[in-house]
Formats: sequence, structure tokens, C-alpha cells
Amino acid sequence: MSGVCLITRGERVVFEFKVTARSEVSAARTGVLRTGHGDVPTPVFMPVGTRATVKTMTPEELKALGVTIVLVNSYHLSLRPGAETVRELGGVHCFMHWDGPILSDSGGYQVVSLAKLVKISEEGVSFRSHIDGKSLFLSPEEAVRMQAGLGVDVAMPLDRPAPYPSSYEDSRAAMELTFRWAERSRKVQREGGPALFGIVQGGFDRELRERCVREITGLDFDGYALGGLSIGEPRAVTRELCSVVAPMLPEDRPRYLMGVGDPDMLFDAVAAGVDMFDSALPTRIGRNGTALVRGGKVVVRNARYSRDPAPLEAGCSCYTCRHYSRGYLRHLFNTEEILGLRLVSWHNIYFVTHLLALMREAIAAGRFDELRREWVSGKDGSRDR
Amino acid sequence: MSGVCLITRGERVVFEFKVTARSEVSAARTGVLRTGHGDVPTPVFMPVGTRATVKTMTPEELKALGVTIVLVNSYHLSLRPGAETVRELGGVHCFMHWDGPILSDSGGYQVVSLAKLVKISEEGVSFRSHIDGKSLFLSPEEAVRMQAGLGVDVAMPLDRPAPYPSSYEDSRAAMELTFRWAERSRKVQREGGPALFGIVQGGFDRELRERCVREITGLDFDGYALGGLSIGEPRAVTRELCSVVAPMLPEDRPRYLMGVGDPDMLFDAVAAGVDMFDSALPTRIGRNGTALVRGGKVVVRNARYSRDPAPLEAGCSCYTCRHYSRGYLRHLFNTEEILGLRLVSWHNIYFVTHLLALMREAIAAGRFDELRREWVSGKDGSRDR
Repeated sequence: MSGVCLITRGERVVFEFKVTARSEVSAARTGVLRTGHGDVPTPVFMPVGTRATVKTMTPEELKALGVTIVLVNSYHLSLRPGAETVRELGGVHCFMHWDGPILSDSGGYQVVSLAKLVKISEEGVSFRSHIDGKSLFLSPEEAVRMQAGLGVDVAMPLDRPAPYPSSYEDSRAAMELTFRWAERSRKVQREGGPALFGIVQGGFDRELRERCVREITGLDFDGYALGGLSIGEPRAVTRELCSVVAPMLPEDRPRYLMGVGDPDMLFDAVAAGVDMFDSALPTRIGRNGTALVRGGKVVVRNARYSRDPAPLEAGCSCYTCRHYSRGYLRHLFNTEEILGLRLVSWHNIYFVTHLLALMREAIAAGRFDELRREWVSGKDGSRDR
Repeated sequence: MSGVCLITRGERVVFEFKVTARSEVSAARTGVLRTGHGDVPTPVFMPVGTRATVKTMTPEELKALGVTIVLVNSYHLSLRPGAETVRELGGVHCFMHWDGPILSDSGGYQVVSLAKLVKISEEGVSFRSHIDGKSLFLSPEEAVRMQAGLGVDVAMPLDRPAPYPSSYEDSRAAMELTFRWAERSRKVQREGGPALFGIVQGGFDRELRERCVREITGLDFDGYALGGLSIGEPRAVTRELCSVVAPMLPEDRPRYLMGVGDPDMLFDAVAAGVDMFDSALPTRIGRNGTALVRGGKVVVRNARYSRDPAPLEAGCSCYTCRHYSRGYLRHLFNTEEILGLRLVSWHNIYFVTHLLALMREAIAAGRFDELRREWVSGKDGSRDR
């Protein structure tokens, strides 16, 4: 254990999911995900902390703005600082000083998109590290063990997304390999270790996706994820596949749409019955000086904001909007001051986190569709987008 | 006024300095600097917020760690975003969301060190902006007016430091010009505007410095600064000039040693009767991954810290040391994560701010020399330095 760690890790990892309310006019639902590190009200947005830090933010800031669960990436952590180092420093919660629930991605997607000379075989993935070029091999079994070693609450098995576009044959092969890896992953899931989700692949073919759901749900995972979406395909395709797949997944398990963080898609997916989301979008565009606001975006660097005393978004109660003008934020970005990256990231994470809180309230109050309509009509086109 | 500004600016700027305790064995003293934006217990360290942001930090974080006054640079702010913009956005306190006292540097030193094609004449300084190359002219009168327009609590007149080394003739000429500019600056200081300090120049010549003190104190400034030190000369020279000049300054006015933030020199200067300090050192080396600790420095990137569960400094009660291990901090620097820059800057500002608090306590309790000896003996040489 680390000398500075004050976080108590749960005696054993508990995992439980309970649906608490349902919309009457859509498949939207609220629930509670119970883990050894606390409860997560769903639907929920999980900020991405790839390298065991949600970029620019402290855990206290995340909690203060309503974040209940974060995502880390076991591929990145296995390369730097190494899973063994994280373990020695008390596990990932202690390491990053986040005592709430943590979900880790296995890095299947990252191996393919970041690593060099990737060779995918039945056994697993051979690749060269994108950092130092070292030759590495990752099997489905090792991916599960590695995440268990990090001490996360929810782990994702190694999977094989199909790029967009892909032929039917390629999509089918990727889906079938994902399934066989899922079987191997499920076998090494240990009692007391992290919960493990099954990932639905199948490219952009509706029937392959449906087949994948039928097969993967037979393995009785703790939850199910929709993988390989939002990777470049048209939004209508994402929306359709999500609305087909989500309702087929077991009612009593959490459903997680990977890599989605933009407001419109969040509404669509929640309406289809999805419970969990993650995306680096709020922090990535935040560091670029783009703020998410209702109806579009505010590009902070825009010269027209140079003497604008208004906050990023009128009525927003995030720390940034309570205390700083667009004029000041523009100045911070113009002068490359780090506080600027912090303040816009802060607003963006709040924006998405708060939006999901509004959705939960609305679902519980039986007026989710009303909120969704209000949201759409709020797009007045007056922003930079 | 800005739409998001909740800071009330004082009706008029009050300025008052009172000595509250004196050491019996040195010239060290405690005091209170009263401004329209609050009281500052002295001796005090002022973190540098050159462009109206103390790099990486929010005002709330600075307050929480004990900061009572910050410094901004009117040269930088006049170039970006422009003094007029700051004024339109409610003045510098509102602009940067810091409601405590603010001291501004006139930028005389920055003009010479950063700007291109500098031409110094009796009238003032002609230069090209280091940002866009625009031709600009700054007179002593304009420097005072600009700082008053920003709304700072304490302004510094335009001055002319001599580089190290300088000939006697050059040092004398720079000192005499500084004096004539000081006279002009004093004349345009307005009732209700910022307090104005006289700056002692004179290169590295003891007699020139003494002559400057005699002349400049005749102008009856609100406080006095030792300028043009700690710019590359040997530490023994800084120490000697400081110990000669400080005691010659009026007892009832605050004394400010510009640009000094390293612990040893702070002890020496406080012992000589200096009340105020500023330095970008804690944040600059912090962003570089170097932490100030008693007895030296910790270079976070050092491989030996990769699995070190200890905090930056044992016993330190700053946010960083309470929650993060050296191993995690090293990981953040290795992966170029912004949180790393924040956490080490945070520790360093705390370190210096807390050191001055210890000095104030020790002076009041009549044991400043004891603290100083303890500090020196604390250098066990076990750190990276």
C-alpha cells in the first residue's frame, strides 16, 4: 500500500445493477450500479481518464461536479507505468486518488489504432508499443488478469472491432473472434475480481449485431457493451444499430455504449435503453478551447468574445461559468495558459454530467420525452457551430 | 462590469502598513499591509501571475494554501489582452477572479529582456512587442496610468535595472534615469489610485545603491522595492546589497525584494528586514517537475521514484502531498499529463507560502534565528539537489 493512500479498497468487489424507473414512451430507464467503491446512478457519463487521470482535473473537482465513475485504459497503463507499478502503488484507485468506481477498457481498440505492426491471431494480439517499440503480446486471458491486477471495478474483455467501412466477411470474422475471446475471458473471470462485460461487435451489419447479441448474452456477463460504434460511420447508422441492439440485451444488466459523448447521440441512446457512456470528447475539445453549450458549441478563441463579459453558457452553474467571462477564457487560450484548458474541460465535463442528471430526473418524473424535445428546440443556431 | 463578476472592488484603494513585531537579534519584522482588497500579513511571498493567472492554479486553490496577494505584469497585460479590455471586463480583480490584493510590476525589466529593438531615452522606452512586433512607447507616466486603469492595489513605477555585470558609469546612468522616472511617476500618482512604490536601483555598486536610497526615499513613496537584483549576480552580492539597502529604507514602509523566491535568500532577506517577495520560480520549476523540499529539490522524473509510494515531502500538508505518491507524479510527468504540472506547482507555491508563514510565527515568538538555524541544519543532502 502507498504511504499516502487514504482510500480503503472494498473488501471484495460487489457488483449489482437495479433498474429503478422506466419511461412509458421509450426504452429509457434509470438504475443504480452498485460496486465495491460506491453506487452509480444510471444513465451515467463516465469521463475518460486514459492514463489514470481525467485530463486537467483532480478527483475532488470531478466529484464536486457530479461524476460518480471514471474510465481508465488498461492498454495505456500496462505500457506506462506498467500494471505491476500500479499494483505496487496500491492499485489504480489509490494510484490516481479516486475512491469511486472505475471501469477499465481492455485496449483492444487502442492496440489496433495506436500500436505498430499489429498481428491479430486466434491466440491474441501481437504488437509493438506505440511508446518504445517494444514487442508485446496480449491474450484475452491476460487482458482480464491485468485489469483485475489494476483493481478496477468493471473490466472489459479484449475484443475486435471492425473498422468503418468493412466487408460483411471481415465484420463477421471480427465478430466471431470477439465471441471466442469473450468465452475465454469469461472463463478466467475470478470470484471477487472485477465485474466483466460482454462486448457486442458485428461491424455495421444489423444481422451480425443481432447474432452477436444472441451468442454473447448466452455467456451471462455482468453487463453488456456496444463496441465498435461511433468510429466514423454516419450518425444514422450508429443510431439505428444502437436502437436495434440495446433492447435485445438482458433487461437486468447494465448496457454501455462505448465512445459516445455528444449530446444528441446520448439522448438517442438513453431512449433506446442504454445506461452507460464514455467519451474523451468533452476534455479533448475542451483543451482545444471549444465549449459544449446547449444548441452547439462556443469556440473560445473567436475574436468576437474578446470583451465578452458573459460566461460560456448563460445559466450554467459550473465553476467556470460562475466565475469567468468568455473574454478572460479567450485571453487564457490566446496566451496558452493552462488554466484555460482546465476551465473549459471543467465546463464540458459538467455539461455532459449534468445533462445525464437531467435525463435521470426526467425519466424518474415520466417526462424524458419532454426533456428531449426541449433540448432539440433549444438549438437556436446562435452559437459558433 | 462583467456579467459573471461577483467581486466587489473597494470603494477607494486604502493603503496602510503597520509593523507588528520585531526580532531582537536581526532586522526581521512582521507587519500587516492593509489594502482595499484585504490585509496581507508580512513578510509575504507573492506568487507571480504574469498574464493574470498564477500558472495552473485557480484563485480558490491559492487562497486555500494561504496566498494573500498575487502579482501581475502590466507589460504583458498591456500587450494581451490590452489594458482597455481588462478595464472593460471589470478590472484585473474581476478579470482574473481574484478578490484579494494585487501588485503589478510595470514591466521595465520585461521590456528590456523580452521586447525587440528597445530604445531607452529620457522620455521613456520605445520597443517592439515580443508578440506581434508592433512599435510601442511606454513613458513613466503611462506606466502608472496603465496600472491604475487595471485597478491594481500596488503599482511599480517604470525603472531601469542595470544588467549584471555593468560598468560603474552604466550603473550610475541607469540609477539616475530610474530616479528621474520615479519623480515623474510620483507626480502622476492620483488620490484613490494604487499605492506606488519607489524602486532602488544602482547596479551592483554599494555606494550607488546607498545614494539611490537617499534620493528615492525623499520622494515619499508608499513602499520601497529593491530592483535589479537576483538577475544573475553571485548570491553573495545579492545578499550583501540587500543587507546594506534594506535597513536604510524607512522603518514605516513595506520593503519588497523583487524576483526572489529561493528559500535561503528569503531567510537572508527577511533577516535584513524585507517584507515582500515575488518569484516565478515555484511555478516555473514546478511545471518542469521539480519540487521544492526542505534541504533541496525532488526531480519527479527521476527513475528512482517510479514505485515510490511516499509523497513529495514527508510531513508536508499540501493537497499534493496529502493525496499523491511520487510514483504517480512521475507517471503524470512521463505521460505529459497536465495534472502533473498542477500538482507540483501546487506543492511549490505551498512550500514557499508556508515557509513565510513559519517565519512570521517565529518572528512574533522571538525565535526567528532559531528557525533559520533549524532550516539550515535540515539540509541533509539526501535530495536530488
